[in-house]
Formats: sequence, structure tokens, C-alpha cells
Amino acid sequence: MNIEITKDFITALTDCIHDQNSKSVLGMLSELHPADIAEIFSELNIEEQSFILSLLDNEISADVFLELEDEDRKRLLKQFSAKEIAEDLIPEMDTDDAVDIISELSETKQDEVIAQLEDKEHAQDIVDLLRYDEDTAGGLMRKEFVKVNKNWNVITAVREMRKQAGDLEEVFSVYVVDDDNTLLGILSLKKLLTTSSHTLLEEVYNDKVRYVKVYEKDVDVANQIQKYDLMEIPVVDELIRLQGVITVDDILDVMKEEADEDYQLAAGITRNVDADDSILTLTKARLPWLLIGMFGGLGAASIIDGFSTAMEKYKVLLLFVPLIQSTAGNVGIQSSAIIVQGLANGAIKGDVWKLIGKEFLLGLLNGLGIAFIVLFFSHYWFGTPYLISVTICVALITVIVIAAVIGTAIPLVLSKRGLDPAVSTGPFITTSNDIFGVFIYFLIAKMILGF
Amino acid sequence: MNIEITKDFITALTDCIHDQNSKSVLGMLSELHPADIAEIFSELNIEEQSFILSLLDNEISADVFLELEDEDRKRLLKQFSAKEIAEDLIPEMDTDDAVDIISELSETKQDEVIAQLEDKEHAQDIVDLLRYDEDTAGGLMRKEFVKVNKNWNVITAVREMRKQAGDLEEVFSVYVVDDDNTLLGILSLKKLLTTSSHTLLEEVYNDKVRYVKVYEKDVDVANQIQKYDLMEIPVVDELIRLQGVITVDDILDVMKEEADEDYQLAAGITRNVDADDSILTLTKARLPWLLIGMFGGLGAASIIDGFSTAMEKYKVLLLFVPLIQSTAGNVGIQSSAIIVQGLANGAIKGDVWKLIGKEFLLGLLNGLGIAFIVLFFSHYWFGTPYLISVTICVALITVIVIAAVIGTAIPLVLSKRGLDPAVSTGPFITTSNDIFGVFIYFLIAKMILGF
Repeated sequence: MNIEITKDFITALTDCIHDQNSKSVLGMLSELHPADIAEIFSELNIEEQSFILSLLDNEISADVFLELEDEDRKRLLKQFSAKEIAEDLIPEMDTDDAVDIISELSETKQDEVIAQLEDKEHAQDIVDLLRYDEDTAGGLMRKEFVKVNKNWNVITAVREMRKQAGDLEEVFSVYVVDDDNTLLGILSLKKLLTTSSHTLLEEVYNDKVRYVKVYEKDVDVANQIQKYDLMEIPVVDELIRLQGVITVDDILDVMKEEADEDYQLAAGITRNVDADDSILTLTKARLPWLLIGMFGGLGAASIIDGFSTAMEKYKVLLLFVPLIQSTAGNVGIQSSAIIVQGLANGAIKGDVWKLIGKEFLLGLLNGLGIAFIVLFFSHYWFGTPYLISVTICVALITVIVIAAVIGTAIPLVLSKRGLDPAVSTGPFITTSNDIFGVFIYFLIAKMILGF
Repeated sequence: MNIEITKDFITALTDCIHDQNSKSVLGMLSELHPADIAEIFSELNIEEQSFILSLLDNEISADVFLELEDEDRKRLLKQFSAKEIAEDLIPEMDTDDAVDIISELSETKQDEVIAQLEDKEHAQDIVDLLRYDEDTAGGLMRKEFVKVNKNWNVITAVREMRKQAGDLEEVFSVYVVDDDNTLLGILSLKKLLTTSSHTLLEEVYNDKVRYVKVYEKDVDVANQIQKYDLMEIPVVDELIRLQGVITVDDILDVMKEEADEDYQLAAGITRNVDADDSILTLTKARLPWLLIGMFGGLGAASIIDGFSTAMEKYKVLLLFVPLIQSTAGNVGIQSSAIIVQGLANGAIKGDVWKLIGKEFLLGLLNGLGIAFIVLFFSHYWFGTPYLISVTICVALITVIVIAAVIGTAIPLVLSKRGLDPAVSTGPFITTSNDIFGVFIYFLIAKMILGF
């Protein structure tokens, strides 16, 4: 059951496709999971992809679609008419997935697809879900779940559940509601396996149920699911009426995406890209930060230029510009990364000034340690006179402390203003540190050496 | 059910603890999830923590323990005798959690605890699991799961399942094995709800079951669970005999930890730390990279020093050192981040030379764009003569291309040698780029300007 997809396999497959050998193609794919077929798609061109989709069952096609990379999916969707999407793909999908696909279409095409959906109930659910922002609980939830009324007994419940579960791949929780659809609690399948048939549900359900509201942020939902080790969480509206459920597999995707995005932001990449994206896409994602960094470098050049006449006397100071700059950058990134992560995990609640004070102390400690070593090298290795060496070290300590404080403060400020603190890491910090680090360095030198 | 933990709540709680008011303390905590209690613990000192644990049920205490931060847990565990751990905590835990706790103890204490476990079967399972590395499938799996023999009929299966499920919080899958315990397939609960009672299991089980081997890496297991949207995956030995299961909530923790670690490595932090760790812990995690960065800066100083006599003539070159350095750093981090992420997601399989060639092109493209702007500024803003401006730009392009290639190559090489490519991001790249960037810059200047 665990099949490895090799290069040879793909070559053999494309050969069969070019020979229009439907039977062999289907044979080769029959044992594969849709996620594997989607992975193979990234090695094929659009004609090859379309040929495969035309052979597969609608159900498997729909699953493959859901597993594709965004770009591949968008390109393929354009090949499908609204009718094909409405008749072949959407009916095979859970509502949350259907919404993801439909929202990738143009507005006119969206309307066409929805108008042509046969199952009116499914269509209604999809329209409901389309209202919610993609990155909220409402945007993540699906309408497929099993719910029972507290006034039913176990027999009625099991009968109703069998009916409702017909559409479901797997049932994790059964939700108990009252006549107004207010969420009251859950009924575990285990409980159902072990309770006698005539008991009323209101006597056996567990009222300790955790839920999220439709408008909560996806990352907050992810944090809750992770914290409380949940497999599924119900989503309710403002009146605690049950609207949908979110399962942990959707949350895995949210977490993965969020982590990837933060990581890339820290590395100065502005949109989610992969190693196999085109050079143009990669350039678009990378050039903006490089330009910002470039202006930072030009700013630093201006500052050095501004001090240049005075510099004649103390040329040796220029040797240590790279040291000042890289240390400021490294300290700043460290500080901001810890804060960004703490904010993402919800671990930072307390006092902002306490955090900044702590970074101040930490910077001082690290700064003293590093300055001591630099003092040694600058004097004995580079033969810099004592006073100048001391100047360099004082500047270094100051720069480290300020870099640490700035690195802490920027993400906190961004987060307070409702912006994503993750953008403050990486080149953002490096660039601001480039400029102010060099400036402080020469300023302190000027104060001590008096040029 | 969704309770907010406020500062006031914690103050009230600590007041009650100091008054030794057990009843109020229990009252305040009774509605909370163990994960919430664990969160509160991070605000309490060890006496307060111990007081609370002494009041709670063993079952809840055990759950709180599992949710604690590593450092808190280690400190608290020291307060417990081997007997208390063996009698009060371990029996309340699933085997995988029990193993996590026991492996945090000293070897002698481990032996004492295991010797005093009452339930010999549980003890045997724990000893089995202790053999496996923490970061393998064996180290993640637990021994609590429901398995049925293919020769049973549905009635026998349900009876046996009820027996086995007694210890389980929730049942997701039922595993079907033969007489040798070889994993054959799974039986969904839904199937069981809808199949008639006298059918033999071998007629109804689903043989499409995905599994992992005990020795597989935890991140690979996580990738599979995510790719195939699984809730649970069975773990087998070399002979495909069923050894345990891993559930998705354990995988969430693995993913979270891995993402945090990579993020911190990219930011130059060597061990997993939080914003609320002590200054000493934070310094230990941060100083190593700062020192490496410092030596990089001193190396760059040496290089500039080496060119210093020639530099007299072209002082203006020094202005652009920060620009060269920061651009090299930014490009290197971008390139390495994309590769590190691609490797982590298993998205990079192909040709190493193709990837490097692509980065070469990408670097050239970005380099030309940036150099063009710099040329303009250097000539018109700083009044640098044309030849020198061109020199700066040629050096800039060369540095960018080389930084991109190095940023791509280092993680690939590390990964080929079985090392974690994530260590190559952040300050590692910055530091090497500091040195070679400055060196190449002056080297090219020397070649063109001939000093």
C-alpha cells in the first residue's frame, strides 16, 4: 500500500499518455491515493493532466483537484466549463472543499456553477459558507456533520445518524442540539456503543463541549485544537447555534501554511513560493526585500559619507563597520523572532515594558561578552590604540542593546496595531539595523574621540 | 465552557493557595481543562504548583503534567518520589505519554518507577516503547488501540472492542490482523454501525491501509499524515506486525516543534526557547550565533585591512561595504530558506545542478536590477566616478550570484550528508556572506581598478 513514485514510473506513465493508452494509464494509477496522483501532476503538462482527469472517476478527480498545488489547480479549472464543474466535481466534494474551489473562480463563473448545482441543499450550504472570510472559522468549517436532538432516544439517534452519516467519510463526534439548533454538547461514539437503546440523549450527552465562533481567526482555531488535543471543533454563530465543524486535518494545513509563511517572511520572501516555482514568480517574491535592503545599504553609505572628513583621522573605525552591522542584524533578528513566535503561540500576554526591559538586560549581557573579545582582537590583532578600541566596544554594546530593544518593540507594536508581526523579522530588522547601527557607531566615536 | 484566564483570576487563585483554602482552589479549577491549568502553572511558583497537584485527582494531575512546559515538568517531577510517580501518575497515562514522562527521569529513577508499576501489561508496553528513539515513529506511537482478528464475526468483534475500548478515550480506527498479528487492514466504525452482525470481518475490512515502520522519522510520519489527511496511522515492525498507533494530535505537536525550531534556527537561536525563559537560558541560546557572527565581522575587518593601502586611492569603495554585505546576506538567506523548506516538505527531489543553475539565473536577474539602481545613486548621488561606480556594480552582481548559489548549495550539501539543513539558514549564511562578500568586492575592485 505504500507505493514509491519514481522517475521511471513517471516516464512510463507519460509514455502511456502519449500513446493514448487509457487502460494502462488507469492501471498505473488505480492503486494510488489522490494525493499521490496530485503529486505526479506537478511533473506533467496540462494536456497530460487533462487526459488523466478525463479517465478518472468523478470522485477521484475531485479528490485530486483538492490536493493540487494552487497554480496547477487554477490552470486546470480554466479548462472546465461551469457545467462540468457543477455536475462532475462539486457534487463529489464536502462543502468546505467545494467552497475553496468555487471561490477560486471568477464571479460570473461562480454564479453559473452555483446555478447549475443539482442538489439544492448542498448548493444552499455552499452559498452559506461563501459568505465567510477564508481565514476565519466560518471559512474553514464544513456543513457535513452529524447532529442529534436532545429529546431523541438512542435508537432514534442511531437511525438518524445512519441517515446523516451516509454522506460522511468518517464520523468523529455527534453533536447534541435543542429545538433551536443551540449547541448543547457532544455524544461520543464510544458512549453510543455502550449505552442501552432506550435512554434519552439528554441524559447521556457530555455538556463539556468546546466551540469556536464563526468569525474567529483560523490561527486561533488552530491554537485551540492543538492546545486541547481535539480532533474536531464545532463552529457556532453569535447565538451559539451550530453552524458547522472544523476537523483537525484542515487545521494541519492552516498550521503548515502559517509556519511556512512566517519562515519565509523571516527570510525576506514576501509570498508563499516553492523551490519549483518559475524564476519570475520567485523574483517577484524576493526582489522587494532586496530593494529595501539595498536602500538600507545606500543609507548606511550616506551616513559614512557624512562622517568622512572626520574619518580621515580614524580610518581604522571603518574596518569594524561590517562587525557592527552584522552584530546589530543578528541580535535584532533573534529578538524579533522570539517575540513573533511568542505572539503566534499566544504565549505573550504580559507587560510590554517587562519584555523590553528583559531584552535590554539580555542585550547588555551579550554585548559585554562580545565587546570583551572584540577589545582583545582590535587591540592585539589589528593594533588599534586603546582609546579607539574602547570606543569601538562602547559603540558595539550600545548598538547591541538598541538592536535588541528595537527587535522586541517592532513586532509588539505591529501586533498592537493589528498588523502581522511576522513581517518585522528578517530583512526589515536587518535593514533598519544597518542604518541606525552604522549611525550610532560613528556618533559614539565622534562623542568619545571628538573628531 | 470557553473560559478566559485573566490576571485577576490568577491573583485570586494565588490568594486562595496562600490561605491554604483547598475548597476554593478546587472550585476555581473544576471547570478548567488540564491544558488551562498547565497554562496557569507557568505563572505560579513550585510550592503553589505542588499545592494544586496535591488537591487534584490523579487523572487530572497526570493530564496537567503532560501539558506542562518541559522545564516546569522537570522541576516538578523532582518533587515526586518514584513510588508516587509509579502509583499516582503513570497508571493514568497512555503508554506514549507515560514513556515521555519516564524518559525525563534519571536512569536509576526510571528503573525504580518501572519496578513499582502495578499493571504488568502496562509496564511491559512502556518498556517496549522506551527502546525507540524519541524522534521516530516508535517513539511517538502508543500501545492503546483496538485490534480485531479477521476470523471474528461482527458480534465477537463488537464485544472484544468494548473490552479493549474500555481504556481508550476515543476510538478512531479498528485494526484487523491475522493470527500472527500482521496488519491486514482497517474497519471503520461507520462500517461496523452499518454491517449485519454475523458477517465475518475478513469479508468487510478495508485492505487499503497506510502504515509506517517503527524506525521512520517523526517528520516523515507527519508529512504522511498531512498529505493523506489521516487521523491516525498504524505503526508496524519489519514484518508488518502491528506495534502501535500514532494519532494526529501527536503529529500536531511534532509539526509545531519542527516549525518553531526551524524558525529559530533561521533567526540564529540554537535551542528551543520561549520569550518567558530566563535570561541565562536565552543567552545560552543566542550567544553562540552572535559569536560566530562576531568572528565573521572580524574576518571582514581583516580583509578590509589587507586591502587598506590600496584603498587610500579609492576611499569611496568603503562607503558601499554595508550595501554589499547586507545584500549578500539577504540573498543568501532567501535562497537557503526556500531550499530548507523544500527539503522539509519533501518537495525537492530533482537535480541538484538544475536548482543551482536556477539560483544562478535568479541571482543574475536580481543582481542586474539592483546594480542598475545602485549605479544611478552611486554616480549621481555620491558623485562617484563612472569607472568606480561600474566596479561597484560588477562586484555587487557577482556577490549576489555567488550568495544565491552558496545559499542553495549549503543546505543541499548538509541534507545529503544527513545533517539538518535548517542550521544553514540565518546567521550561518549571513556570516559566510559577510566574509566572502567583502572579499569578492575588493578583489573585483582590484582587478578592474588595478590598485
